[in-house]
Amino acid sequence: MQVGMLGAGRMGANLVRRLLGDGHRCVVFDVNRDAVAALETQGATGVASIGEFVAKLDKPRVVWLMLPAGVVGATIDELTPLLEPGDILVDGGNSYYRDDIVRAKTLAARQISYIDCGTSGGVWGLERGYCLMIGGEEGAVRHLDPIFKTIAPGAASAAPTPGRTRTNGTAPEGYLHCGPSGAGHFVKMVHNGVEYGMMAAIAEGLNVIGHADAGLHPREVDTETAPLTDAWAYPYQIDIAEVAELWRRASVVSSWLVDLVADALARSPGLEDFSGRVSDSGEGRWTVNAAIEIGVPAGAITAALYERLASRDRGQLADKLLSAMRSEFGGHAEKKA
Amino acid sequence: MQVGMLGAGRMGANLVRRLLGDGHRCVVFDVNRDAVAALETQGATGVASIGEFVAKLDKPRVVWLMLPAGVVGATIDELTPLLEPGDILVDGGNSYYRDDIVRAKTLAARQISYIDCGTSGGVWGLERGYCLMIGGEEGAVRHLDPIFKTIAPGAASAAPTPGRTRTNGTAPEGYLHCGPSGAGHFVKMVHNGVEYGMMAAIAEGLNVIGHADAGLHPREVDTETAPLTDAWAYPYQIDIAEVAELWRRASVVSSWLVDLVADALARSPGLEDFSGRVSDSGEGRWTVNAAIEIGVPAGAITAALYERLASRDRGQLADKLLSAMRSEFGGHAEKKA
Amino acid sequence: MQVGMLGAGRMGANLVRRLLGDGHRCVVFDVNRDAVAALETQGATGVASIGEFVAKLDKPRVVWLMLPAGVVGATIDELTPLLEPGDILVDGGNSYYRDDIVRAKTLAARQISYIDCGTSGGVWGLERGYCLMIGGEEGAVRHLDPIFKTIAPGAASAAPTPGRTRTNGTAPEGYLHCGPSGAGHFVKMVHNGVEYGMMAAIAEGLNVIGHADAGLHPREVDTETAPLTDAWAYPYQIDIAEVAELWRRASVVSSWLVDLVADALARSPGLEDFSGRVSDSGEGRWTVNAAIEIGVPAGAITAALYERLASRDRGQLADKLLSAMRSEFGGHAEKKA
Amino acid sequence: MQVGMLGAGRMGANLVRRLLGDGHRCVVFDVNRDAVAALETQGATGVASIGEFVAKLDKPRVVWLMLPAGVVGATIDELTPLLEPGDILVDGGNSYYRDDIVRAKTLAARQISYIDCGTSGGVWGLERGYCLMIGGEEGAVRHLDPIFKTIAPGAASAAPTPGRTRTNGTAPEGYLHCGPSGAGHFVKMVHNGVEYGMMAAIAEGLNVIGHADAGLHPREVDTETAPLTDAWAYPYQIDIAEVAELWRRASVVSSWLVDLVADALARSPGLEDFSGRVSDSGEGRWTVNAAIEIGVPAGAITAALYERLASRDRGQLADKLLSAMRSEFGGHAEKKA
Repeated sequence: MQVGMLGAGRMGANLVRRLLGDGHRCVVFDVNRDAVAALETQGATGVASIGEFVAKLDKPRVVWLMLPAGVVGATIDELTPLLEPGDILVDGGNSYYRDDIVRAKTLAARQISYIDCGTSGGVWGLERGYCLMIGGEEGAVRHLDPIFKTIAPGAASAAPTPGRTRTNGTAPEGYLHCGPSGAGHFVKMVHNGVEYGMMAAIAEGLNVIGHADAGLHPREVDTETAPLTDAWAYPYQIDIAEVAELWRRASVVSSWLVDLVADALARSPGLEDFSGRVSDSGEGRWTVNAAIEIGVPAGAITAALYERLASRDRGQLADKLLSAMRSEFGGHAEKKA
Repeated sequence: MQVGMLGAGRMGANLVRRLLGDGHRCVVFDVNRDAVAALETQGATGVASIGEFVAKLDKPRVVWLMLPAGVVGATIDELTPLLEPGDILVDGGNSYYRDDIVRAKTLAARQISYIDCGTSGGVWGLERGYCLMIGGEEGAVRHLDPIFKTIAPGAASAAPTPGRTRTNGTAPEGYLHCGPSGAGHFVKMVHNGVEYGMMAAIAEGLNVIGHADAGLHPREVDTETAPLTDAWAYPYQIDIAEVAELWRRASVVSSWLVDLVADALARSPGLEDFSGRVSDSGEGRWTVNAAIEIGVPAGAITAALYERLASRDRGQLADKLLSAMRSEFGGHAEKKA
Repeated sequence: MQVGMLGAGRMGANLVRRLLGDGHRCVVFDVNRDAVAALETQGATGVASIGEFVAKLDKPRVVWLMLPAGVVGATIDELTPLLEPGDILVDGGNSYYRDDIVRAKTLAARQISYIDCGTSGGVWGLERGYCLMIGGEEGAVRHLDPIFKTIAPGAASAAPTPGRTRTNGTAPEGYLHCGPSGAGHFVKMVHNGVEYGMMAAIAEGLNVIGHADAGLHPREVDTETAPLTDAWAYPYQIDIAEVAELWRRASVVSSWLVDLVADALARSPGLEDFSGRVSDSGEGRWTVNAAIEIGVPAGAITAALYERLASRDRGQLADKLLSAMRSEFGGHAEKKA
Repeated sequence: MQVGMLGAGRMGANLVRRLLGDGHRCVVFDVNRDAVAALETQGATGVASIGEFVAKLDKPRVVWLMLPAGVVGATIDELTPLLEPGDILVDGGNSYYRDDIVRAKTLAARQISYIDCGTSGGVWGLERGYCLMIGGEEGAVRHLDPIFKTIAPGAASAAPTPGRTRTNGTAPEGYLHCGPSGAGHFVKMVHNGVEYGMMAAIAEGLNVIGHADAGLHPREVDTETAPLTDAWAYPYQIDIAEVAELWRRASVVSSWLVDLVADALARSPGLEDFSGRVSDSGEGRWTVNAAIEIGVPAGAITAALYERLASRDRGQLADKLLSAMRSEFGGHAEKKA
């Protein structure tokens, strides 16, 4: 099958490589001409403009957008007039699912199908495949099935679920049509929220273990400092890199994220490349906002989000106010670092 | 009545002043001789040693300890051999209530009564009176009633509770015998836990209001930054000092803590004296540990505690691990401040 | 001054009474004719239709809406064609501040001023006055100053803030022009968020104290139950009604909410009227959503919100999934209540 | 090597099977004679008393305790007089690591080595192997190496960590000597804390997805209910069983816990066996208490713990107090289920 890939960044380029590797044909456009050229050497057809891009595609066209969320809207606006009824547009990036609902409706008026496809797998996807969460109308999703099958990791990538009796469905292949427009990015959004929570749990736990030597360091004795009553109970100097490596095997927390943290600590036990300012790129916030709007508690995911915000000093005004109140009622001066 | 005050720091000195002002007699000892001398000019009897302190007290002696939690144990050890059956020892500081249980038992073997008394009121207590949470055996508590009545704020310090029909009990006076040994410091401990939670709620809310101008500051557009979709909804430059002053009157959140935050912001709108490293001196931690041991959720109080810990960078190793994981799965580099 | 009050429910009726009591004139409309009739006996001018309502008002008209958030939009739509340039519309209810921004813009096109006014004080406002958080354009706010002054509690309702040197501004009177359209409801929204957090802190703390007798009740010994190692440390049967009464005086947590919880427990120590399903009416959710959009942590307020959601079993599917996972990895059966 | 297994419950029996399968010899005692008999048929030596158990063991004896935490202490007390200098006692259960510190010291006085060994793997360990977290003195741990190697899953159970250059150490085999006495159970305790957090993240996320149809169900309109402004954004009926199956492959959240939740949902999409009362058996609490004592934030893990407590109605008194406060300030009646 032929796919037009709009965006040849890390993710887009790897999707193209996976598609080419499985016998599909790809037309590629990116403002970065080097990225396009690199894919041409691997068999893709590079083009130099959106116009040429559209012209090179067989009808009905399949266009896959793999772009930063911030430029998706403008790109669709530019692309739409060049497309024709029956064409299919896939947004494989991290768009907000609500934008999908609006875009799908607008494009439907021109008989263009809009498919939202949350794509998980990061820099490892070329090798492992990408987990695909898909939203949009049935017919177009079915049409794209060969593409999804190639991009997805495939059933062999994990042992079968023992209790599963259902024999149809594509979930075991690693791709799923989740529902109408937006459903794909909705599930991907929540996936990333879950990711936040799992990451926080692992990081918090290793932080506790990394401070299990608290009893070896005498704590200041003054009225501003909580005493460590049971110093004897914290005498451990534990190598968290080895703990992470250990937990990879047969523990209840074994997971790809534990694999990754073990790898990161193996490469750099002191994590010198990082200062601890943790970004959040939107999906965690959206997940919490969705939880609140539909009225379900999401304490662990929210705690994870707030830890990231606090790591970037977004709580500083609140913290100053706390110190100010303590000064007011107790005459407490703030302790310096 | 005569009271021996051991400790003439800010709290101890103010207790002495309140007692003297209501016609009680006070014998005062402190290692800081100036502090003792200052109280002598106001009518207290200063002494220069523990031995002299004990000798000056009428039997049965009433000794009130107003010391940092860290030195209470050693002081009791020094004092005990000098006391006699029937004497009463009050710990008015912030001891851990479990220590009270042990101490009361030890002293009971020598027929010395040990009373734990949580004392709230901070630097304002001289004027407002102190809220007293008392634990220990009935007889000794009754014996000390005149002392507690003087130190407490008195019924007139707040309007009567409309629905209250009970006519006995000292709670409306601002002091309460909460139960056996440790009960006083237990209730004080939880009081401080509640204080943490209320402070956090106020600080978080004012932090939100203080950032209501987010829409006026363009947010960076890159894949590491959550976009601010609705910038139009955050156009407000609101004076949080005036908001705090406003909330003091007839709002549901009106409280002494709001009074104090209004005062702090009136004195220093920019809070220049504070960098936002918030101390915690033990009671908040103990409250959470108690909640967990007895198995009741305490989410708001715990969030407050963790915000204080995070303000002192105690989450930094966890934060570095989060950045490291993000780098591993997504090739994300950490953004600098 | 003359005010037209649209809505004579509990809040609206009490506003009218406060206005009449201070010499203002009021025209009142409500679909509930009895409510209107009751206010007529106290000096208000009752009307039987929106048309009559508008006709009875001096120009420029001042219309104060005191309606459930859900019907404000429709009422404004009905009212607008009847108003004239120069008229002022105040929304005193709990509208979402974003709706204010839209409404103000729409009405401005017809030269009608729209003022949003968050009103705190609940059922006690008639007596205590109402804390007013106001948004909208300067001129209209200034025009309404006599009205706000009457409704607000006044400076005497709290002692002056010691550190306050600023002599202008209305915040000490209990009303404040917070900023342009929406700013009033924004500050009220966050006020309610703070209220959630403070309420949760108080409730959690009293829950801990109420379970301080855990050591007296033997805990089941099985592999599904966390053991209570230190049963000796939880021997207290503490009267939480008396603790709440105690904390009203001179404690750091003294606050109107503690006053109220003391009253509730005085009336009904067993809280028999309540099953523990706690409603949330929007402002808490909106506060958290705002915190997340502008990227500041709000852990205590959010914990408070989630506790309310959990109290209404909104976490039940998650809880079932947790039990299912425990069954899968450990063969754990769920314990019954 | 010969091992004496004390306790032939699910975990103990499977350890015996794994040991026998790898050529070790096992002596087994349990109060449940059927459990012992079953293992005899597989090659173990069953005994009928503790005395016989000790007598049958080669010196220096290796005794592995696989018992509920509640009976470990009494069993050690019974066993100790029968052991001799040089013997080694392994506690493979879920004891509190502080008990290990005390027990190791007591037994060291009799020259008996005490090893604490946290064992993860649950009902699947027979097949997958058990992840072992070990504490105690070096010599004894080295002596037991063949045993640990057999029980552990082995290096082949996961792909090598790409960045790992270290070639020594047993962590890649799935067992690790974490440090002195207690270190093993400390790391296991935190492991379970991480497990709580990861489970909560997954359950919360699926709960959000499971309620993505909120827009299809009209929400009540009254002042007690937060309105669902954007009903159009929640039109999805998503099959969470298929989502769980999907996430098993190449997603960032892929993990054993996601495997298990997929299995549970495959077996029972409606989770009819569960009502949502989630047990907690101690380690989560201890993890949070340790975090607090050493002063590091652990928001996600703690949120997970509190969700479990709330699922068992441990917040009910707090919830009633919240409803009571709402009734006091706003006249709000509690809504029924």
